Amino acid sequence: MRKPLPSWVDGAVSEQIVNFVRRVTKLGGPSYVPPDERVAVFDSDGTLWCEQPASALAFFVMQRLREIPKDCADSLTRDARHAALRDDVAYFRGLELDELSLLLAHTNAGLTPEQFVTQAHAFLGSALHPRFGVPFGRLTYRPMLELLAFLHAKAFRTFIVTGGGAEFVRASSEELYGVPRDRVAGAAVDYTFERLGGKILVIRTRSLVGDAGEGAAKVSSIQQRIGRRPIFAVGNSLGDRPMLEYTRAGTQPSLCLLINHDDPTREYAYAPGVGEEAQTFLQDAIERGWSVVSMRSDFRRIFVGADNARRESAARDARLARGA
Amino acid sequence: MRKPLPSWVDGAVSEQIVNFVRRVTKLGGPSYVPPDERVAVFDSDGTLWCEQPASALAFFVMQRLREIPKDCADSLTRDARHAALRDDVAYFRGLELDELSLLLAHTNAGLTPEQFVTQAHAFLGSALHPRFGVPFGRLTYRPMLELLAFLHAKAFRTFIVTGGGAEFVRASSEELYGVPRDRVAGAAVDYTFERLGGKILVIRTRSLVGDAGEGAAKVSSIQQRIGRRPIFAVGNSLGDRPMLEYTRAGTQPSLCLLINHDDPTREYAYAPGVGEEAQTFLQDAIERGWSVVSMRSDFRRIFVGADNARRESAARDARLARGA
Repeated sequence: MRKPLPSWVDGAVSEQIVNFVRRVTKLGGPSYVPPDERVAVFDSDGTLWCEQPASALAFFVMQRLREIPKDCADSLTRDARHAALRDDVAYFRGLELDELSLLLAHTNAGLTPEQFVTQAHAFLGSALHPRFGVPFGRLTYRPMLELLAFLHAKAFRTFIVTGGGAEFVRASSEELYGVPRDRVAGAAVDYTFERLGGKILVIRTRSLVGDAGEGAAKVSSIQQRIGRRPIFAVGNSLGDRPMLEYTRAGTQPSLCLLINHDDPTREYAYAPGVGEEAQTFLQDAIERGWSVVSMRSDFRRIFVGADNARRESAARDARLARGA
Repeated sequence: MRKPLPSWVDGAVSEQIVNFVRRVTKLGGPSYVPPDERVAVFDSDGTLWCEQPASALAFFVMQRLREIPKDCADSLTRDARHAALRDDVAYFRGLELDELSLLLAHTNAGLTPEQFVTQAHAFLGSALHPRFGVPFGRLTYRPMLELLAFLHAKAFRTFIVTGGGAEFVRASSEELYGVPRDRVAGAAVDYTFERLGGKILVIRTRSLVGDAGEGAAKVSSIQQRIGRRPIFAVGNSLGDRPMLEYTRAGTQPSLCLLINHDDPTREYAYAPGVGEEAQTFLQDAIERGWSVVSMRSDFRRIFVGADNARRESAARDARLARGA
């Protein structure tokens, strides 16, 4: 049989993953979990793709802000538009996720969902990452795509649980990850419903529905959207802690992975959050029984598109460009 | 090949369904729709199961209200509790769906999601319908279960879009319909997040998140939860109209079914709503290109559990009783 996780270094973590999946899928085994209950949740930024020097969402919002004519900026977007025009990435890194989500809503109000998807695809396929010089859509982590594919092959249902706008993630979740749009949980924009020439139109508003946020909000989001406690969870920051704890506290067997960004050469090295808690977070993780994934030691390759995968990336870019 | 819809009378409507599904799944055909985009949405009450003399949700809320000790009723539940104690079904029929959803939230606050599911299963497997004398969980429509199974076999993803509480529906959506819990859209209860002895607990509150409602709220719900315009939609009332219109107004081929309750002998005969609009609704439906399903003429059998299906129903009751 072909190895399921070729971009992972053979070692403790990849073994834990493969063994866990074998255990819970072994019919008649003591740890068997039926397919309905094989729910796996993934954080998005920093877990499935690069979030430095700021998230792709932040760069998308910056692009959209630059497109606002001066006269059309409102009190919420005025400062942010100025920051975007002077390429002030630090300004956007400093925003809370709910503030960023609100900016996303403001800069895309009036679009239909289809138009929004087209905008997001165009951004992901063309805007270049400032350090790696490839489109943002190529900065997904190859080992994580293999993990998703492995779980899908074993009848897991995978969900992306994001603290930011669900709709930016799901605009390309099928193309980037093979995760259907309805399996992306997070803050949703509100819609209005208009009739135009006998046709029904759904139009994005500037308001959000539900919590945009990390931490406990992600657990609520899992319950509201999925309705089941996951048995597999992957995150990379303090904001993912409750989600991982919730997964671990179930009665079923479970596996929690925490991605440690410790590879300044191939990606970035940074703490899983700010403050004291972040200092002890990795140590705590081990005590809690989570597996810590070192990007430096556990990932043979990092990105789908920035190392040896030109051909596949080109095909995917073409798909994104075609899509809508 | 075995006929896909054995409980449907051979006729115009069943032919339209089978032909539509063939057309959109024919690889290379002019109407081919890729699996990602094969989204089908179903209303719940009156479309997938019996909603007379009141919905199963209303009877469940009545049961839960009766269990409230007198001293524990609050201003919201006091009158409703009295109505439940005197078995006043008309009182609950007269409530708007959002009022009923709020009563559901109030009568189940403090439960974990797992405890709530257990309560709902116990109700569906044991509380008897006042006219048919079988558990509510058996009053699903057999022709609709066949339709769901047919669509699943053709790689459609089916969703239940309810104007009431999503969580009551999804507590048994897998057992009753084979629809995963995450594919039920509707008003969600809000949760709090507590720590008890080092364990994370998710607890139901009395508040709702998102719109509980019919009509346009269902279209917003589809966009927020599914993120795609459906190509197949089934409903039975004025509250489903925007959902069916939205489906029909897409650029893909689409099929909309409207269930007409016209069988007072085997089920009930009633109008699809109140007011003038309801009078012309069926006529309008045909003009809009929807297919009207006559329960009297198009359904060979009605219920899963009230006619010839004792054995299967018993198995399902046992499953419900076992489940949690």
